[in-house]
Amino acid sequence: MTQNIYDDPTFFAGYARLPRSQAGLEAAPEWPSLRALLPDLRDLRVLDLGCGYGWFCRWAREQGAAGVLGLDVSEKMLERAIADTQDPAIAYRRGDLETVALPWGAFDVAYSSLALHYLADLGGLLARVHDALVPEGILVFSAEHPIYTAPNRPHWTDAETGGKAWPLDRYLEEGPRSTDWLAPGVIKQHRTMATYLNLLIEAGFGITHVEEWGPSPAQIAEHPEWAPERDRPPFLIVAAQR
Amino acid sequence: MTQNIYDDPTFFAGYARLPRSQAGLEAAPEWPSLRALLPDLRDLRVLDLGCGYGWFCRWAREQGAAGVLGLDVSEKMLERAIADTQDPAIAYRRGDLETVALPWGAFDVAYSSLALHYLADLGGLLARVHDALVPEGILVFSAEHPIYTAPNRPHWTDAETGGKAWPLDRYLEEGPRSTDWLAPGVIKQHRTMATYLNLLIEAGFGITHVEEWGPSPAQIAEHPEWAPERDRPPFLIVAAQR
Repeated sequence: MTQNIYDDPTFFAGYARLPRSQAGLEAAPEWPSLRALLPDLRDLRVLDLGCGYGWFCRWAREQGAAGVLGLDVSEKMLERAIADTQDPAIAYRRGDLETVALPWGAFDVAYSSLALHYLADLGGLLARVHDALVPEGILVFSAEHPIYTAPNRPHWTDAETGGKAWPLDRYLEEGPRSTDWLAPGVIKQHRTMATYLNLLIEAGFGITHVEEWGPSPAQIAEHPEWAPERDRPPFLIVAAQR
Repeated sequence: MTQNIYDDPTFFAGYARLPRSQAGLEAAPEWPSLRALLPDLRDLRVLDLGCGYGWFCRWAREQGAAGVLGLDVSEKMLERAIADTQDPAIAYRRGDLETVALPWGAFDVAYSSLALHYLADLGGLLARVHDALVPEGILVFSAEHPIYTAPNRPHWTDAETGGKAWPLDRYLEEGPRSTDWLAPGVIKQHRTMATYLNLLIEAGFGITHVEEWGPSPAQIAEHPEWAPERDRPPFLIVAAQR
């Protein structure tokens, strides 16, 4: 059972104030990289794993998707997603990604933004997503980068050579990490890059692209405070094909 | 042109004193992981990219390989490889992996141990290795892990939470890094995990397994000083298939 931190009132209130919560996909700096890995969604059936407020579901329909199913474990997120959506071709369903059943061969594209690092049993979900896709169906996801999730105490220090450094430890020790982000005791599951990729391969996916996301020079010009993110990428983005 | 540091007398003398130089494959702690990714070599044609002293070439023949070609840029390494080898089915050839021509469809297995992080143009080599393999031929390689090659000044610090930490910086800034290992000014090429994997995919390979190597509990029991390597893996190991 995944920790349902999004229904924690303190967490939910903090999350609602994030730029990406208020302004949607365009406020997420990694969104252009995710979008670039998606096929033309026209007439495709799309699955959103951890749909949150439904921003991606609605965007997919704007691109011409035939239908979209958004799944999320958070009742509060889904309440707002439903309130913000007037489109009979978008369905929302509450479910824990670790256990939710998915229909076989029902989707052309599966998408997930920053949800999979909450799951202890990622392999189980990937096997179900594999079967839920049509042959050659596409999975595109982002997750917090393993370098970001690994440390006992994630923080920046001043590098001796100037700039910032990210003291990395426990990289190969997989398992839960408790961090205080928006609320105390948020549980994320650290797994290595290798494990993300091997679980995909074991589930039957072929890996088609990997990106370790950091801000572009143009983004750093606009947000100089993002520069250290190039010292330690915050997000892992993967595209895979059934 | 790759820096040919192995023909530097200081470097070569230091390298010759390493356990893996004196005792061969079994002295390399990551060898069991590499070996596990190799197919049964009986009757197969094997290519070793950066063969060094020829330990792997001779081992492949002991496993029944039909023939082995070992390539290396270092004249001194090849001199010793030739001196240590009495086997007409093993051929050694001097060549820079960045430019060396390879025969098409001539090999069933390509192998490389800790050589590819010296190459500035890895994509060019991978394209040639792809064409040098038969369809469904296998590539298994190790390289220094990107977390290991990234920092401006690679070093351990004491973690605030106990144990060691590896201050990571410049992870997304790819390119040469000059380090003092066995000799001053050894040039290694830092590239991210994503780049290693995307170059393989672009060359036509399917990725079949990824390992971020760290010592096992049994190895740490024997060598307690290796424990911090689990905080920051030193080696990346990848298996791919044409």
